[in-house]
Amino acid sequence: MEQHEQQSPPSVDSIKGMRIDCLDKGFVRLVDYMGDDSAIVQAARVSYGAGTKRVHEDRGLIRYLMRHAHTTPFEMVELKFHVKLPIFVARQWIRHRTANVNEYSGRYSVMSDEFYVPEAEQIRPQSRSNRQGRGEEAFPAESAERIRTSLQDFQRRSYDQYEELLEQDLARELARINLPLSMYTEWYWKIDLHNLFHFLRLRLDDHAQHEIRVYGDAMAEIVRQVTPMAYEAFEDYRLNSMFLSGAEQKALRGMLNADALDSVEDESLREHGLSKREIREFRAKFKRLFHD
Amino acid sequence: MEQHEQQSPPSVDSIKGMRIDCLDKGFVRLVDYMGDDSAIVQAARVSYGAGTKRVHEDRGLIRYLMRHAHTTPFEMVELKFHVKLPIFVARQWIRHRTANVNEYSGRYSVMSDEFYVPEAEQIRPQSRSNRQGRGEEAFPAESAERIRTSLQDFQRRSYDQYEELLEQDLARELARINLPLSMYTEWYWKIDLHNLFHFLRLRLDDHAQHEIRVYGDAMAEIVRQVTPMAYEAFEDYRLNSMFLSGAEQKALRGMLNADALDSVEDESLREHGLSKREIREFRAKFKRLFHD
Amino acid sequence: MEQHEQQSPPSVDSIKGMRIDCLDKGFVRLVDYMGDDSAIVQAARVSYGAGTKRVHEDRGLIRYLMRHAHTTPFEMVELKFHVKLPIFVARQWIRHRTANVNEYSGRYSVMSDEFYVPEAEQIRPQSRSNRQGRGEEAFPAESAERIRTSLQDFQRRSYDQYEELLEQDLARELARINLPLSMYTEWYWKIDLHNLFHFLRLRLDDHAQHEIRVYGDAMAEIVRQVTPMAYEAFEDYRLNSMFLSGAEQKALRGMLNADALDSVEDESLREHGLSKREIREFRAKFKRLFHD
Amino acid sequence: MEQHEQQSPPSVDSIKGMRIDCLDKGFVRLVDYMGDDSAIVQAARVSYGAGTKRVHEDRGLIRYLMRHAHTTPFEMVELKFHVKLPIFVARQWIRHRTANVNEYSGRYSVMSDEFYVPEAEQIRPQSRSNRQGRGEEAFPAESAERIRTSLQDFQRRSYDQYEELLEQDLARELARINLPLSMYTEWYWKIDLHNLFHFLRLRLDDHAQHEIRVYGDAMAEIVRQVTPMAYEAFEDYRLNSMFLSGAEQKALRGMLNADALDSVEDESLREHGLSKREIREFRAKFKRLFHD
Repeated sequence: MEQHEQQSPPSVDSIKGMRIDCLDKGFVRLVDYMGDDSAIVQAARVSYGAGTKRVHEDRGLIRYLMRHAHTTPFEMVELKFHVKLPIFVARQWIRHRTANVNEYSGRYSVMSDEFYVPEAEQIRPQSRSNRQGRGEEAFPAESAERIRTSLQDFQRRSYDQYEELLEQDLARELARINLPLSMYTEWYWKIDLHNLFHFLRLRLDDHAQHEIRVYGDAMAEIVRQVTPMAYEAFEDYRLNSMFLSGAEQKALRGMLNADALDSVEDESLREHGLSKREIREFRAKFKRLFHD
Repeated sequence: MEQHEQQSPPSVDSIKGMRIDCLDKGFVRLVDYMGDDSAIVQAARVSYGAGTKRVHEDRGLIRYLMRHAHTTPFEMVELKFHVKLPIFVARQWIRHRTANVNEYSGRYSVMSDEFYVPEAEQIRPQSRSNRQGRGEEAFPAESAERIRTSLQDFQRRSYDQYEELLEQDLARELARINLPLSMYTEWYWKIDLHNLFHFLRLRLDDHAQHEIRVYGDAMAEIVRQVTPMAYEAFEDYRLNSMFLSGAEQKALRGMLNADALDSVEDESLREHGLSKREIREFRAKFKRLFHD
Repeated sequence: MEQHEQQSPPSVDSIKGMRIDCLDKGFVRLVDYMGDDSAIVQAARVSYGAGTKRVHEDRGLIRYLMRHAHTTPFEMVELKFHVKLPIFVARQWIRHRTANVNEYSGRYSVMSDEFYVPEAEQIRPQSRSNRQGRGEEAFPAESAERIRTSLQDFQRRSYDQYEELLEQDLARELARINLPLSMYTEWYWKIDLHNLFHFLRLRLDDHAQHEIRVYGDAMAEIVRQVTPMAYEAFEDYRLNSMFLSGAEQKALRGMLNADALDSVEDESLREHGLSKREIREFRAKFKRLFHD
Repeated sequence: MEQHEQQSPPSVDSIKGMRIDCLDKGFVRLVDYMGDDSAIVQAARVSYGAGTKRVHEDRGLIRYLMRHAHTTPFEMVELKFHVKLPIFVARQWIRHRTANVNEYSGRYSVMSDEFYVPEAEQIRPQSRSNRQGRGEEAFPAESAERIRTSLQDFQRRSYDQYEELLEQDLARELARINLPLSMYTEWYWKIDLHNLFHFLRLRLDDHAQHEIRVYGDAMAEIVRQVTPMAYEAFEDYRLNSMFLSGAEQKALRGMLNADALDSVEDESLREHGLSKREIREFRAKFKRLFHD
């Protein structure tokens, strides 16, 4: 990531068409996009007019918008992806309703013989601490391999049945009903940047299933190229943010020395990466913590 | 349908909880709803104020709203269904994004051993005239039965594999990936009446897959009970409507006698079910046809 | 419109930035867009795969999609407009919720001294036949002029009060509350093509207020340049379509000679502009009319 | 708020129809609603199935859902309000697109002679620290009164012009264009609980304009009655939450004693209101803070 920002900005052509392989047979490809960091700034300046004059440069304005949840300027950027993904991933993905989708249809066309088989490394037992996920350690290599083989065998047999049914001239829309959720499908998926950030926040989370997180990572990498400033702000203020409930703030107060805040120098806050305006906001937050 | 209106209105209790079986193991159940025909009228009277005074009674107003695509009053009614349906049907259904969904999750819980097996009658060859559908006639009884048995065998084997993998303690989110699209899932699905009508228009269509049409029919039956006037208007002005393109209108003009319209008596139009206002609109449409 | 299709396709640059003046001081400007007719075709071919092979060329496929309400491929095109418009028009416009908006804010910035004054020609009495609109004829020139002057005087006075309140340092968010609905505002507005067509269908209608129709016309002209084939299909199958309810179809049946249809030659249907496939669909529609 | 939870749950009738006056002439009234806390729990149990067994009681489950952004069960509750509000408030409000609206129309009906006049206490100068808002102190009583009078005079004159234009039979849709943004309008507004919480989070914020915050407060009060547990969770985890960016976390780390966390007793955390599960989550958050 670092290198992208140090390099001169990549030309449009090198981003459009950018493709990242995902899992064993899938991919994410950026088909087209509209707008970049400057489109966010342009929309914000319409809304906030003279109000944005104070924030002199684009990066500062974009960070301000993200920090204060002024989300509409981010909606002015649109991205269109071509994605190849297993059906069980597609089923989680489609829950995000604020996007446009054109999926390959098994009613119109014959499905291809491609299935997802997890790498041995990902073949893991049920997590003990987490109802919905897999544990930290993989199975022993041998067991993992046995499971992989068993999954593959079954996938082959399911495709054999599919082909047999098609040969008997059963309607495609029925022949496909026993195809498994591990089968690959494809779609075009179009979304605005604000909603994509929302998708990424949920799907880059530890609790998201590994297989969809892989796609989240790939799209994050692409967004980082299309709108580097917005992505950086998203990382700092959303992805890596910490969230404290009312009760947790009280607990924190108990752990903090009331005048710790006063003794912190602006200089040291600046070193942590806070801008002048953010230093003001940071001090205000903690003042409130001690006086609420 | 007529009888609903002649009967005394069904009590709320008899509608809430109403359940209709669908396919071999599925169902649609009305969990709750907010508003009925009178809620549509109430909202319309806020919007159109004095403008609605002319339309004296509710049925006339509702029909006027539907005819002229004043859709927002229909959005004021909300319905919540509990649905049990095969995954391949769920995948078509979820394309309708203007609804709220809570689906049973195979990451959190073990999936049940229930699969859709089409009736022999529905086991049909690929349609010749229609790329996406099945033909009109079923296979011979014997072939159909053989196909049913083959589908069922495979479903049993897929569940066997699922159980084996769970027994080996493979994480649920992975053990499920080879389960077939014919497996049943469940969800709560909530939608407003306007968007439900849109769903029904698409899913009651001849081109919709039989299996989702069955659910469309069930929900249509429930809506007919919740909002009988709105449903009647939906049938007359949407479901049974005919749509002529610019070129088709020219073709129709060639088939019509220019003064056929003048010679039609209001009385006879009334007999076809047109209200006074609709007779005016009908004459205007055809006048335009001949003078454009 | 004709000329656009006969000309070579306009270069991208000539469309991006295209601006059309609207009313006395407003405009619509195309800031950016993503995709054109070929993007619609591309998305459709993903969805319908082999199913689209039969439809050989792009225009035929786009018309097929529009005719059969396969709307998702049209969602793959996105347009972003900069619009300057009176507030009362903005209030009607914003009812379309499937778009992204960044509006100039009177809390952050001072509003400009610009108001809409209708042309004399548009100064008209309340319609007799139509609760929501104005009549066909304008007022006598003199009365119209008197009304225009009276509107302008009042607008000037409202801006005077606004400036006085700002001079007294009243907060901008309060000083603006007596500004009239005729004041101009500005926004960025981004929408996909399917939803824009829906907007246009409602806002190009006779019943829409003249002032918003002017903006609808301007956007229609721009869309016609961006996606000429899709716009043509929208015109033929949506804008100029005729809609007959169940009862109206019965009435039509009474006016038609049952064998009128049989005696129509394919040749003559072709002359009306129907394609081979549409001729089949046209005959099927009328066959159903006579046999339902 | 406390008292609601100690009292027996209010009967449905006492909530439906509940009306709270807002500003000088406006109100919020709960017309109807579907679902309460138990509907959230019911939907969550469908989704998370066996996974929810561990969370024994409803309050704990609702708090868990809110804390971990499992938002879909909250979408299963729907509320419908009748609101009377000034047009400039309506224009801010309508930016929330995930709701259904039926507004009184000035094309169909004559607008009533009702305008918002701020209380003297709210007549305040432009804020110095905040581009979009008003300052902390009001104007001197006399100046405030003078401004109020001037606003009222102008409103009266604008209605006089409106009436004159109507008397001259100018179409309603034109006669209204000079009416000011301070005029009252009315609408029915329907939204699901998740989206209402999002609305409230933005509109109860310090930076929201006072006049819309008043409506936010009224709706918050109503929601607290309809879904007391969900509202409490919303307050603790959203409204009163504290948000620290990556850089701010580094700054906090500098202010904290690394073993402060270890020395905090579970008992004391429990006293701050943290549940057993939240204590675990709290410790994990701070462990991450020190080890990232």
